[in-house]
Amino acid sequence: MSHLYKHLRIHQVFGANTDVGKTIITTALVRASALNNNRVFYLKPVSTGAPQDADDGHIKRHAGPQKHLVDAHCLFRYGDPVSPHLAAKMASETQGVKVSVPSDETFVGSIAEHIRKRARAASLGAHMYVETAGGVHSPTLSGTTQLDSYRPLFLPTILIGDSKLGGISSTISSFESLLLRGYIIDAILLFRDEYYRNFEYLTQYFAERGIHVTALDPPPPRLDDPSENFANTEKYYSNLVPPSQQGDVFTALEHLNECHARRIQELDSMPRRTSDAIWWPFVQHGLVKTEKDVTVIDSAWSDFFSIYDASRERTSQPASLLQPQLDGSASWWTQAVGHGHPTLALAAANAAGRYGHVMFPQATHLPALKLAERLLQGPGKGWASRVFFSDNGSTGMEAALKMALRSFIVSSGLELSSAEKKNLGVIGLKGSYHGDTIGAMDACEEGVYACEWHEAKGYWFEPPTVSVRQGQVAVSLPPALSSLSGDQHQVAEAFETLSHVYDVEQRLESPLARHYRRYLEKHMRHLQADSSRKLAALVIEPIVMGAGGMIFVDPLFQRIMVDVVRDPTLFPTALPVIFDEVFVGLYRLGFESAGPLLGVSPDISVNAKILTGGVLPLAVTLASDRIFQAFNSESKVDALLHGHSYTAHAVGCQVANATLDMVGRLVESDQWLGAIRKWAPEGATSSRAWSFWDPKFIASISCLDIVDEAMTLGTVLAIKFKDDDAGYASHSAQTLLQSLRLPLEDGSSSAAPGGAPFGVHYRTLGNVAYFMSSLNTSRATIEALEERLWRLVSDVRRS
Amino acid sequence: MSHLYKHLRIHQVFGANTDVGKTIITTALVRASALNNNRVFYLKPVSTGAPQDADDGHIKRHAGPQKHLVDAHCLFRYGDPVSPHLAAKMASETQGVKVSVPSDETFVGSIAEHIRKRARAASLGAHMYVETAGGVHSPTLSGTTQLDSYRPLFLPTILIGDSKLGGISSTISSFESLLLRGYIIDAILLFRDEYYRNFEYLTQYFAERGIHVTALDPPPPRLDDPSENFANTEKYYSNLVPPSQQGDVFTALEHLNECHARRIQELDSMPRRTSDAIWWPFVQHGLVKTEKDVTVIDSAWSDFFSIYDASRERTSQPASLLQPQLDGSASWWTQAVGHGHPTLALAAANAAGRYGHVMFPQATHLPALKLAERLLQGPGKGWASRVFFSDNGSTGMEAALKMALRSFIVSSGLELSSAEKKNLGVIGLKGSYHGDTIGAMDACEEGVYACEWHEAKGYWFEPPTVSVRQGQVAVSLPPALSSLSGDQHQVAEAFETLSHVYDVEQRLESPLARHYRRYLEKHMRHLQADSSRKLAALVIEPIVMGAGGMIFVDPLFQRIMVDVVRDPTLFPTALPVIFDEVFVGLYRLGFESAGPLLGVSPDISVNAKILTGGVLPLAVTLASDRIFQAFNSESKVDALLHGHSYTAHAVGCQVANATLDMVGRLVESDQWLGAIRKWAPEGATSSRAWSFWDPKFIASISCLDIVDEAMTLGTVLAIKFKDDDAGYASHSAQTLLQSLRLPLEDGSSSAAPGGAPFGVHYRTLGNVAYFMSSLNTSRATIEALEERLWRLVSDVRRS
Repeated sequence: MSHLYKHLRIHQVFGANTDVGKTIITTALVRASALNNNRVFYLKPVSTGAPQDADDGHIKRHAGPQKHLVDAHCLFRYGDPVSPHLAAKMASETQGVKVSVPSDETFVGSIAEHIRKRARAASLGAHMYVETAGGVHSPTLSGTTQLDSYRPLFLPTILIGDSKLGGISSTISSFESLLLRGYIIDAILLFRDEYYRNFEYLTQYFAERGIHVTALDPPPPRLDDPSENFANTEKYYSNLVPPSQQGDVFTALEHLNECHARRIQELDSMPRRTSDAIWWPFVQHGLVKTEKDVTVIDSAWSDFFSIYDASRERTSQPASLLQPQLDGSASWWTQAVGHGHPTLALAAANAAGRYGHVMFPQATHLPALKLAERLLQGPGKGWASRVFFSDNGSTGMEAALKMALRSFIVSSGLELSSAEKKNLGVIGLKGSYHGDTIGAMDACEEGVYACEWHEAKGYWFEPPTVSVRQGQVAVSLPPALSSLSGDQHQVAEAFETLSHVYDVEQRLESPLARHYRRYLEKHMRHLQADSSRKLAALVIEPIVMGAGGMIFVDPLFQRIMVDVVRDPTLFPTALPVIFDEVFVGLYRLGFESAGPLLGVSPDISVNAKILTGGVLPLAVTLASDRIFQAFNSESKVDALLHGHSYTAHAVGCQVANATLDMVGRLVESDQWLGAIRKWAPEGATSSRAWSFWDPKFIASISCLDIVDEAMTLGTVLAIKFKDDDAGYASHSAQTLLQSLRLPLEDGSSSAAPGGAPFGVHYRTLGNVAYFMSSLNTSRATIEALEERLWRLVSDVRRS
Repeated sequence: MSHLYKHLRIHQVFGANTDVGKTIITTALVRASALNNNRVFYLKPVSTGAPQDADDGHIKRHAGPQKHLVDAHCLFRYGDPVSPHLAAKMASETQGVKVSVPSDETFVGSIAEHIRKRARAASLGAHMYVETAGGVHSPTLSGTTQLDSYRPLFLPTILIGDSKLGGISSTISSFESLLLRGYIIDAILLFRDEYYRNFEYLTQYFAERGIHVTALDPPPPRLDDPSENFANTEKYYSNLVPPSQQGDVFTALEHLNECHARRIQELDSMPRRTSDAIWWPFVQHGLVKTEKDVTVIDSAWSDFFSIYDASRERTSQPASLLQPQLDGSASWWTQAVGHGHPTLALAAANAAGRYGHVMFPQATHLPALKLAERLLQGPGKGWASRVFFSDNGSTGMEAALKMALRSFIVSSGLELSSAEKKNLGVIGLKGSYHGDTIGAMDACEEGVYACEWHEAKGYWFEPPTVSVRQGQVAVSLPPALSSLSGDQHQVAEAFETLSHVYDVEQRLESPLARHYRRYLEKHMRHLQADSSRKLAALVIEPIVMGAGGMIFVDPLFQRIMVDVVRDPTLFPTALPVIFDEVFVGLYRLGFESAGPLLGVSPDISVNAKILTGGVLPLAVTLASDRIFQAFNSESKVDALLHGHSYTAHAVGCQVANATLDMVGRLVESDQWLGAIRKWAPEGATSSRAWSFWDPKFIASISCLDIVDEAMTLGTVLAIKFKDDDAGYASHSAQTLLQSLRLPLEDGSSSAAPGGAPFGVHYRTLGNVAYFMSSLNTSRATIEALEERLWRLVSDVRRS
């Protein structure tokens, strides 16, 4: 991940094209840095072409009067003067043996290791230049293009502009490709060509965009005689970078130094400024005591944040001020394919460039239409006929509730008074959460998430739950459903595997199913007898209630709830069923939607979060034709009068389409199929319920003394700690896991990009610690987290 | 705007760099099109370099056996082989006279006119190629780069890839720059260079991205002898484009034809598919009778949609199937700087690439922090201390209400029961609208925008209003405030100019002010006596109530409302004041925030819509320190427990920052200062209240018989029609204005980019028609709309 050291300024040098003078201009910078009496490190990770032309050699030869301060290296060297991916291939062909091509991870790891070593060796004021090969998008050894390859390192960049004919275009396009990957571009340097005068145009163009441009004298033509050429070149450099330390190169150098200092100053100031200006959601500011309690996220890539930690500079071996931190809650359950994915950035930009936001009522545009159609063929398949757009899960649920209440009234043919309408009630489960707008809150019990106007409108059943206890998959009953009383839960049934629990059809005739049905029927009858609140909808988060504490509800219970509210002997008008799949849907738990698992379809469902790949807000409410028809008439006032300004914004829809494309490929990937196989019951190759987390790990951790139960599905792992025991076991999840936040400094290379030690950013819900990956998190990352969790939690037991 | 004809396929040819073979490959395509017996049009808008090298000449010479079918043109020709902007400059220098350089508008207009002429001359199966100069970002004559210059035409593109060393990079970067502007890229063509093998890499790279790549044999080296060179070149072309009509060029041609056919098919199918899959907001589907009632938006640029109209092909002179339509409601009041602005697309992409969405509670990142700080120095200046983020105006208002209710309770020290808390009430104005989530609805009266759970919690006063009637600026009183009864409003006071009405301080001691104060005090006392609903907040949309019907409230009345709820003799605990500035804020009405105009600050305010430049949803709730402190403690449950997954998403924050940068420059622009001067009272150069619309136009239209009143501030124009008269005047706004949707075909060049006739997309609110520009809409566009409105509305009077 990112590297940033107070004592060592690092810049990466990208070229707007090949042959634009990257090495010559870098040589000038190196020489100027050294003349300033700074230790200078030059790194050319990949060099192609004849050895005598190698860039690190050129740097060494022309490093100037202070050349003893200069250290120049190359990590991978190939003979053919072609693109690195091809040079590696050609070397392999000509040498008749396969030249091993490093993977992107190894490549970035080697560079990161080199930087870490130099950082340890350097003292205050050192500079480093990392020069790429070719243009910004020239392929590296693996074939990944330069700016995607180097992105995990997130070094601030210098772009060497193109001074030739056509160079304005390649310079601006390269700049935009860098911006698309989030790169910080501190300066553009190019040769001053007096005929094409690109520097004139570009200086003004980039001044308008706040980017510093420096034009430098071009080098003399190459001479045939090596010694004459050397002397001529040396003369060029000594004019360009004079001992007087005057001129454009030194101005540029000064600017780069300032950028470096400003960046650190800014990062340093961010906790204080944030504490002064921001009102965080769900945070008690009074409990945020020090600047260290504020996580400063400088950038993010894949599953990792890059966070600023000022204390790193004060360690005996100065480490990078920016450190990877695993995004252990998938940034509030939003991440699908990791942070900073260029495909999603491009999708966002493309829609912004083609449409911006355009008016949606009675209008249409391709991104929204395509998204709607694929959702009707995805989570809505077989039951939904319409897609309604809004901005987040909470507003998606408000629309769902408006749909359900109205369609219930229309279907039932009841003439209700205004007061009766206001008091329509929903059926749900204790622990439900549907968002923070007041209508969505009103579909939940009153509790911690309260506000003055919140009025719980309905009845909520306490659910039986699924978990792994002492290595055993089991369904537990709450007191209301069991023979036990008080807070105790009773294990009702044990299962061989998770897959068996989620085989709902198979369990429908079990004694437990009959018990559930009798219980629900009895209570529903009581509720219907209450004339103050007419029941009008069933509203559930299928499979897991997330915010309520990662409660894995027995799917059989939810299935029977749906069956009961559709039983005409109990409900003359079937209650509309809303599945709030904002958290669980779109493969967060390994399945696209919960309907097929439960064996029933909802009338209305809501998706958000993963929908837009963890980039920006968008929500959809899917509805069946029966629901839609309740609003369809010749009268405007019957319409669903709900809408937000940015309804179906093209940027969100396009990003969603790109996300679903990627997810579609992931679902078929070896990584997924492998994980599914691991969870398959003996003799089977597939599993109805499965997880990215290892079954043995879950079983083992559930056996620990301090663990009450553990559970996992798809990307989610939840560990519930006991909190009523004495001694170490009384640690709450929050206290127990605190050390996870700190990087594990055991000297080994980590699973983070570049191999730096990483801490884990996690969230707890009461006594439940949960962890969540993206849909493409590497097995290595998950294993690393499993190992850290195991060490930490099993250590407590042994203490 | 966009050009699309069924009978004429048009592609624009961009180059990944200069000298990549654009003209040679285009020649091959032209030749192949002609061999297919298609009429072919070639247009090189700008040509630089020696006349004998001109591309249109090359095309004509090598158009092949069917060259009589080929028409090749150049519109602007310069002698120096440099970038067009420089060529124009150099021509000016060498010729000693200033060569006039066409503006971007003229440039695009000339090309559009050329295309329209050719389209009229063409018959089914014709092809057109429009070849750009240099690379995608090479400057055109004005200095604007190619892809920004041509963007209003939105022609589907062919990118000519770069086959040289470094060409992989320039091809991919160029592709990304095109995508960023929303361009449709149908194919990439490049030479097959067997040494660098870029085509191999690029074919795979773009296959993964769904883009067709064709590699073609490179041309022979140029020979010195002109006739030998011609023969050699001709031989190359006849091999590349053989009379057999076989080979790669024909495959590419077939692909381009398919893309064209598919695009039209897709556009044709969109109304039906949309009617089948989408549930629109605020639309009664039962009233959308035909496919023609669905607006198909293919793209948008500046203030115009590009909409599909299949009927255009059936006219006697086939017009483009895509036509400009003025976005007359600024896409539900969101647009700030026009659609498809590349600066905002880049900002979105940059944040997506650097962060994606990152966890916000107790964390920070630069885009959110910078946005918060600038808002505190902008609309929050002098009173706000904190910024809370959410996703849209409605959720921003829900947060605001939660803040207000809690802080009122804390400040008052009252111990309220749960039932009393649920019944806390707000004071507002009749016609208020704060969004569609149920909490925001509950702060408004029950009315049309109803849903079952909506419960109006408060009391709403009928407001006095400001308008221009019969050319006179006046404040009118509702019956409750006047001596009249029934629906009649009484003109209470006439004013010389709008500026005088909005000089609230000056009016504070007027008789009307005393009247307002007495009235409000009396009613507030009554309301306080009602123990069932304790008053806890004042919630208003300052200056204008938008969704309620573009009601311009007398600012003096709102000022006195604020004064009254803060008067300790009436309210021992001042009521927190919420300004819902979602619609009115951030210069929609010409001012940044309403506080300075009213002479009072709120305790809480909400901004959204313009905030993100009309690209994607984001909202902010600003709060004073007093409000914040009501939630600040050592206990988690006291915190504001409200948050959405994508809270403070980096993409939205970065786009907002870029928008506010641009808006900051617009505010100082000549266009703004000119508009302000126009509205200044005699002798003054500035005006407290002003508009983009012309004062004389407003005065005139307000004098028409069918117009009840008109009003304008900033970008907003509202015209209220009379509806109780007989004859033509009984037309509702909706019926009266219907013809505005159709393009005005009077043969003149329109204000739309490219000069095509345009219709107007507008919305009405009951009897009020309103129109709204962006903050940078050209005077020409507004004038065009004023003229159309005037013709239409004054015609009715004369009939």
